[in-house]
Amino acid sequence: MSKKLAICPGSFDPITNGHLDIIKRGAKIFDEVIVATFNNQAKNPLFTVDERMHLIEQSVKDIPNVTVDSSEELVVHYARKKGANVILRGLRAVSDFEFEMQIASVNKKLYPDVETFFMMTNNQYSFLSSSIVKEVARYHGDMNGLVPDVVEIALREKFS
Amino acid sequence: MSKKLAICPGSFDPITNGHLDIIKRGAKIFDEVIVATFNNQAKNPLFTVDERMHLIEQSVKDIPNVTVDSSEELVVHYARKKGANVILRGLRAVSDFEFEMQIASVNKKLYPDVETFFMMTNNQYSFLSSSIVKEVARYHGDMNGLVPDVVEIALREKFS
Amino acid sequence: MSKKLAICPGSFDPITNGHLDIIKRGAKIFDEVIVATFNNQAKNPLFTVDERMHLIEQSVKDIPNVTVDSSEELVVHYARKKGANVILRGLRAVSDFEFEMQIASVNKKLYPDVETFFMMTNNQYSFLSSSIVKEVARYHGDMNGLVPDVVEIALREKFS
Amino acid sequence: MSKKLAICPGSFDPITNGHLDIIKRGAKIFDEVIVATFNNQAKNPLFTVDERMHLIEQSVKDIPNVTVDSSEELVVHYARKKGANVILRGLRAVSDFEFEMQIASVNKKLYPDVETFFMMTNNQYSFLSSSIVKEVARYHGDMNGLVPDVVEIALREKFS
Amino acid sequence: MSKKLAICPGSFDPITNGHLDIIKRGAKIFDEVIVATFNNQAKNPLFTVDERMHLIEQSVKDIPNVTVDSSEELVVHYARKKGANVILRGLRAVSDFEFEMQIASVNKKLYPDVETFFMMTNNQYSFLSSSIVKEVARYHGDMNGLVPDVVEIALREKFS
Amino acid sequence: MSKKLAICPGSFDPITNGHLDIIKRGAKIFDEVIVATFNNQAKNPLFTVDERMHLIEQSVKDIPNVTVDSSEELVVHYARKKGANVILRGLRAVSDFEFEMQIASVNKKLYPDVETFFMMTNNQYSFLSSSIVKEVARYHGDMNGLVPDVVEIALREKFS
Repeated sequence: MSKKLAICPGSFDPITNGHLDIIKRGAKIFDEVIVATFNNQAKNPLFTVDERMHLIEQSVKDIPNVTVDSSEELVVHYARKKGANVILRGLRAVSDFEFEMQIASVNKKLYPDVETFFMMTNNQYSFLSSSIVKEVARYHGDMNGLVPDVVEIALREKFS
Repeated sequence: MSKKLAICPGSFDPITNGHLDIIKRGAKIFDEVIVATFNNQAKNPLFTVDERMHLIEQSVKDIPNVTVDSSEELVVHYARKKGANVILRGLRAVSDFEFEMQIASVNKKLYPDVETFFMMTNNQYSFLSSSIVKEVARYHGDMNGLVPDVVEIALREKFS
Repeated sequence: MSKKLAICPGSFDPITNGHLDIIKRGAKIFDEVIVATFNNQAKNPLFTVDERMHLIEQSVKDIPNVTVDSSEELVVHYARKKGANVILRGLRAVSDFEFEMQIASVNKKLYPDVETFFMMTNNQYSFLSSSIVKEVARYHGDMNGLVPDVVEIALREKFS
Repeated sequence: MSKKLAICPGSFDPITNGHLDIIKRGAKIFDEVIVATFNNQAKNPLFTVDERMHLIEQSVKDIPNVTVDSSEELVVHYARKKGANVILRGLRAVSDFEFEMQIASVNKKLYPDVETFFMMTNNQYSFLSSSIVKEVARYHGDMNGLVPDVVEIALREKFS
Repeated sequence: MSKKLAICPGSFDPITNGHLDIIKRGAKIFDEVIVATFNNQAKNPLFTVDERMHLIEQSVKDIPNVTVDSSEELVVHYARKKGANVILRGLRAVSDFEFEMQIASVNKKLYPDVETFFMMTNNQYSFLSSSIVKEVARYHGDMNGLVPDVVEIALREKFS
Repeated sequence: MSKKLAICPGSFDPITNGHLDIIKRGAKIFDEVIVATFNNQAKNPLFTVDERMHLIEQSVKDIPNVTVDSSEELVVHYARKKGANVILRGLRAVSDFEFEMQIASVNKKLYPDVETFFMMTNNQYSFLSSSIVKEVARYHGDMNGLVPDVVEIALREKFS
């Protein structure tokens, strides 16, 4: 039995409780999970790559088999370089589904050995996205339950 | 590192090349894959459970870590009984997606420890379903590339 | 200000916590809500119309402005007869959306004065349907949180 | 320039104003259009194939380049036999889209020379289907604008 | 019976006949409707908030129970401040549906007492959006039936 | 029998094998196909209109009844000016479908005589878009099978 390594890629600008749920559930199945921020995927990000990585690290610090990284490559190039044969993604809605299907197809074509596995986002987070969290934060709305505490603090600072 | 066991459930009436592609790809990632026919999921099936199991067995006989089984339980009950913590499903289209999301949610509620992982069906099989294969077979259309050879033979017999 | 009366139509075979959530939220906005079972909408129902009405009545007995009825007419005919100008429906997913859009359009054409209002099903019930509840009950799965207690008891009896 | 012949297949149980709109628009582009009823596509049809053909014939009798036929073959087999290289279909909604995409893909695989062209159903008919028309007729609702006059008469007879 | 007040929020850049249809139908059900432009929702708007409000006011001036306002808050904050417990939104298509579902969910979380009601856009306006109207106006296309007369005049001026 | 002329409009920034497949299949059905680049449809294009036209011309040079053009008008204005009564579009996914339905509806309203025909994109290209090709090229990924050779060369130059 070889070690099962999964990459959990995203822009994480910032990480939400929805992301965290997928990471935790993936970490129960795979031996090791790398959460990797891809800078190129975020247009006009609110947080720098370093800030985003720091917020993820704080949020996953209690899960022993999860590490945090960043990359500016294509996701499959990165997965291959790391020796991972699984990319892990959360699915919330039909619009996610089609975009993710397109990405998974091109990745499959580029490197057939890397599989993309999708997990359904927990119902209670199905409306959550980094964008909507930033919108709520911009208007000083209540972020309780939407993001980890460290992210809530960071968002309040950005929009104070 | 514990052994990773995945259940690949379905009615498989009959198994198609689309199913087979998901099974093969899953067998590269997980240590063991059980392909399980669930009798209750098929209304007015063309093949009996035994016939369906036999067709699957013939189709996967060259993949060492795949076994075939059948059950009349709920999928999560079966997964739990087998000690599997992964259910593996293929996704073709939006209509699949919503139905599967509903099933995965209720499964998650019944047994939170069993995760459902979805894989995108290979583009070349995205139109394939057991129903459409039976429709083609009923009118003696060309099944080349749609199903394993043993299934093609079995379908021709049923509709001769 | 005229009294606002809304019809909440369905087959309710049986009522679920998802239905109940829509009824409760509707009852906060409208002066009166009639929950009406339409017999024709259910194919091979598990419960008789009387059983279904009784289960709804037990489930809504603490909401003063909700009454329960049944009908064998078209929903808009019934709404018009009752003097209701609002039909209230829950939406869970895209597949619901398209079907409901079709129904709302034909209703609008038949009686332009009757409006259909849609409410998003609470996230925690987005996977719930009468069908899936009956499937879980058939295999003696855990129904906790899926249906009102009276429905759970009635389902256990049906499948004992 | 070869003659352009298009097949407009369906169950037409019965033909609606939505079907008629697609047929009329197709007949402006193609030199000849054959409207073909496929008996196998309708489960428990309300009208016999002969009745359905008669209702179509009455509805298209003023369009010179449209003829009516019936078949019990696969649509592509029929198209090929007739020397048609175009199958014409109307699209109303996402659910249509996915089903049609599946059918068009398998047809393309069976006979690559036969192309399926889709036309968007006119907005005013986007909610219309043979099923919903039959439902309205069953409850003696107003069918004005939904179906050709001959179909309205035939439906009233069936449900009188 | 308390007064039923609904908020109809949007960017209205500019108001179309599709928006107007929703407003008119809502005004028949609720005692009072406030049409509120939210500046933040429009990126690079063509019209200023004042211009947009003026165009709405001209378009709704014959509906006695409709007033026009603007806000720079979150929609639920605004609704709460106004004492409204209903947000009214039109739904055209699946893409609308998912976005609106996300917004309604986060609003529900922020203020559970404010309900979002969705109405299906009239079929004849299902393709209409402020964006497509501006695109047609930019190329001096025919806007007849797409927007109120005052908006047509304003668009011609902007693009003259 | 009049000559059948179809317009195949797009931004083609750049043309992909998916576009080429639709053009080739359309050219088998219609007497003449004009591939027309519409500059306004591409935001921040990678290639100039002249470059895009040149790449299309190179890619279709073996198809005798296809010509290449560009325009800055609305697509229906252009179609009408050219005497074309068909606009030809490829459909990949649900998100395409809704956007295209909106465009086709407004075009139909502007000029009822111009019909939009949709063809399902070949399964093997269903994930392909100009955007994803540019993304792959930007990271020096393998473009084999995604675009015509001339486009691959042009992309390598742009991103060298």
